[in-house]
Amino acid sequence: QLCAKGMDINYFFPVFNLGAGYHSESKAKEYKHVCKRACQKAVDRLRAGAMALEAVTAALTELEDSPFTNAGTGSNLNLSGDIECDASIMDGKSLEYGAVGALSGIKNPVLVARRLLSEAQKGKLSAGRIPPCFLVGTGAQQWALTHGIPPCPSEKMATKFSLSAYKRNKRKMELAEKIETEHHFLKRQRTSSGTPISSSLDTVGAIVVDQEGNVAAAVSSGGLAMKHPGRVGQAAHYGCGCWAENAHDARTYATAVSTSGCGEHLIRTMLARECSTAVQAEDAHQALLEAMQNKFIGSRFLASEDGVLGGVIVLRCCKCGDDQSSENLQALLVEFLWSHTTESMCVGYMSAHDSKAKTHISRLPPGAVAGQSLAIEGGVCRLGATND
Amino acid sequence: QLCAKGMDINYFFPVFNLGAGYHSESKAKEYKHVCKRACQKAVDRLRAGAMALEAVTAALTELEDSPFTNAGTGSNLNLSGDIECDASIMDGKSLEYGAVGALSGIKNPVLVARRLLSEAQKGKLSAGRIPPCFLVGTGAQQWALTHGIPPCPSEKMATKFSLSAYKRNKRKMELAEKIETEHHFLKRQRTSSGTPISSSLDTVGAIVVDQEGNVAAAVSSGGLAMKHPGRVGQAAHYGCGCWAENAHDARTYATAVSTSGCGEHLIRTMLARECSTAVQAEDAHQALLEAMQNKFIGSRFLASEDGVLGGVIVLRCCKCGDDQSSENLQALLVEFLWSHTTESMCVGYMSAHDSKAKTHISRLPPGAVAGQSLAIEGGVCRLGATND
Repeated sequence: QLCAKGMDINYFFPVFNLGAGYHSESKAKEYKHVCKRACQKAVDRLRAGAMALEAVTAALTELEDSPFTNAGTGSNLNLSGDIECDASIMDGKSLEYGAVGALSGIKNPVLVARRLLSEAQKGKLSAGRIPPCFLVGTGAQQWALTHGIPPCPSEKMATKFSLSAYKRNKRKMELAEKIETEHHFLKRQRTSSGTPISSSLDTVGAIVVDQEGNVAAAVSSGGLAMKHPGRVGQAAHYGCGCWAENAHDARTYATAVSTSGCGEHLIRTMLARECSTAVQAEDAHQALLEAMQNKFIGSRFLASEDGVLGGVIVLRCCKCGDDQSSENLQALLVEFLWSHTTESMCVGYMSAHDSKAKTHISRLPPGAVAGQSLAIEGGVCRLGATND
Repeated sequence: QLCAKGMDINYFFPVFNLGAGYHSESKAKEYKHVCKRACQKAVDRLRAGAMALEAVTAALTELEDSPFTNAGTGSNLNLSGDIECDASIMDGKSLEYGAVGALSGIKNPVLVARRLLSEAQKGKLSAGRIPPCFLVGTGAQQWALTHGIPPCPSEKMATKFSLSAYKRNKRKMELAEKIETEHHFLKRQRTSSGTPISSSLDTVGAIVVDQEGNVAAAVSSGGLAMKHPGRVGQAAHYGCGCWAENAHDARTYATAVSTSGCGEHLIRTMLARECSTAVQAEDAHQALLEAMQNKFIGSRFLASEDGVLGGVIVLRCCKCGDDQSSENLQALLVEFLWSHTTESMCVGYMSAHDSKAKTHISRLPPGAVAGQSLAIEGGVCRLGATND
């Protein structure tokens, strides 16, 4: 349904992931709104001639600024009641990468990751020093400030919702720990007792392809609620939170991937890169299904886990004009897919053909068990050049 | 030469990497000593019945404690004159993993990574929280202290050598930046002028196989000299600094890998995991050679770099007793390899057959250019059970 015909310019295709986790009907409307605004921002930039990397940054900034997402403003609070964010970005053209972990006091973590990437592209620092691609904690904050990214007090990034969730979670933990202390003499093995804390897994991510077929991917997360200070999740981990790789010869696809869910599960399965590699196979849908089943839910690396929580958005594309046509008359064939093992995942997508973004809340089939089953959907879009 | 025959118990095989970089003849003696002591520690633990994970931890602790290595005591100082360490460890049996990044004030970073791994093995925390596998900065330090790992003031971890290198590097940087400021109006592109700073790349790592054929790998690093505070290198990066994976069926090998060199190069090529995957091929030597050439020196991910600096130690093993013999009568066939693109790399190895460790400083062939050429060497060892 997304196929466009007879257009005379090339087109753009952002896809968004508003995080995997439980999305109540009441919240669904808010999520869809944020998703639409982010799509619009990216497409606006692409229409103005920006490359994929710029568009994906614009989308992420919008997603981070929403108080409804667990990224930037509205992030989960950690054990000490602070906000510490992870973010990363990858450019499929240069294959450059930038990431920040456990970053406090910066409104848009993705902008720091983006800046690390572009600073690294400038080559070595004075006296032959290699520029960093991954910075964490106060060092990362300091670097951001000296590179002109303004500070933002943590209080401004917390929301009514995140503060009340923190208080509720704190009480649950105290209660659970009281029970555990009482049982301490009976059992030596750690037992995780008490009501589970509520943790938004709504990491945000985006993947974009621009008119030249360049891809980019980014991801941003406030991490798990009540995480230990200093804990870094998949969003700051190379190969785990996002992946983007332009086609490197005529037989390969350009791919872009962004993940969300439980960071520890996504790190140990390197899910972003795993999915990127998988969808080089002929049938992308089948390949992603198998990757999610065998390399994630059934992964040897997560054998001891009782449920494996995550979601991915995946895009692959290739030029499909005939060999005679000039570069900018070639059409782009874009396949986009999403898959998740969580209850639900909110996805939005938009091409420059569209006057507004489409959004969708994907849910597991009835009766399916989160952490053990998956949902997979997607579509194909020909972003068109010539009068076909 | 390492083949042992007619032994009636199974045996152990630690291999060490004292880091890749330039090793002057005068320093070579010191490096070899440290290497030997670390081997001895690991073998002592293995002889006492410890598993690979314990032995690799013992070896790393010894390597970190040496003032001659760029890990723990003696680490490179960062831009602010502080020590911030990265370390990680992986257990091939459980496939569990633990890592710390930009950690200050702890004498043995590997012990924190080790503790993260074992805490994660205990299952979920109170109220269903997922235990972290990767902690950074002050949060990591805090976690270490609350888990009984004693603090150590940074001053005690600095050495005469690291302090004087810091002062020398600081002067070089100031001079280089002065030149750059003067050239600022002439050129817009960043130029890396001035004498390159001296940076020890001597990350330490170890790989071990125990009598049951379990493998483990670990790595520890003080990072690049004059790095920005908060910079995290490959030693804290999943899949990049170390990798260990037991054989998961009769057709696969157990593999263990540890890397050292320039963190940014090792992260973006995920070299540890890449080498582990490569040596599942029939000819391990050829497979590692190709991986180093195509996935490291010639990597698309490092196309903009003028030299790619790193080294790996790799071990693979399989049980080679006949199918009839009971588990503990099977011999272990261990192949160990090392390869590097740096000027030199110091390696040590020892099996429980040996009364002392063998050490070796591997150098690039004469005329070969560091960052563009490689050296590769290795050996095979049958660690034997039955009277063969």
